[in-house]
Amino acid sequence: MQDQLEVITANDAFYEALGRYDIDDMSEIWAKDPWVTCVHPGWKIIYGWEEIEESWKSIFSSEGRLEVSVSHAQVHLAGDYAWVICNENISTTLNKNFFRSNMQATNIFMKQRGRWLMVHHHASPIPEPEPQEFGNTVQ
Amino acid sequence: MQDQLEVITANDAFYEALGRYDIDDMSEIWAKDPWVTCVHPGWKIIYGWEEIEESWKSIFSSEGRLEVSVSHAQVHLAGDYAWVICNENISTTLNKNFFRSNMQATNIFMKQRGRWLMVHHHASPIPEPEPQEFGNTVQ
Repeated sequence: MQDQLEVITANDAFYEALGRYDIDDMSEIWAKDPWVTCVHPGWKIIYGWEEIEESWKSIFSSEGRLEVSVSHAQVHLAGDYAWVICNENISTTLNKNFFRSNMQATNIFMKQRGRWLMVHHHASPIPEPEPQEFGNTVQ
Repeated sequence: MQDQLEVITANDAFYEALGRYDIDDMSEIWAKDPWVTCVHPGWKIIYGWEEIEESWKSIFSSEGRLEVSVSHAQVHLAGDYAWVICNENISTTLNKNFFRSNMQATNIFMKQRGRWLMVHHHASPIPEPEPQEFGNTVQ
């Protein structure tokens, strides 16, 4: 139960760093092994913290700001590894415009020296629901 | 090394079942636990073998046919769990038309009674490279 809580806390910390565009906090969350991997939505996979750090810096240099909330999180423990499957509910503000998007994420963590660190992040867009039809249509 | 080979064999068997549209072979590959999960490209996540089986039956009922080859496969062992990160290179034939697409996949396996079974599949499109510009353009 303790591990489960620690993993969900690590997962939440990842999204808090993302929401704050905080590269130092993001760095705290990731393992620094050369084999760690990251798939941003619509990007090619990138390998190793160095490349991953560059990608976050590029995302965080955007003028937009985003808010992320996580839902439907499912934690699976596998010894010193764990994976979390969750929905990312993202609101982006850019030049007074406002966008909402939903992503499906698979996040894998590894326990290193007592801390759960991210070793793989794979996020991809979830299709938007069909627009609702209203009863009162203009004929 | 033995586990590594067994996991890559299980991963290959998944793509062979997909390429043959073979629901029985696909069933052999998946764990039947209610918490297993699948994210087809552009689909919402689905839970449990029953729903996942329905999704494969729906995909396999298409008149199109596809060929899949796997590249850049990376296997990570975590005790009785393992994950594979790989590219899916897909050629689809439908009504004499031919399409190519590339997907990024995160596949998680669990060893149950000596067999590596899939417990999570997450695939999403990889962006196509920009079209090449040719020197001889029509002015």
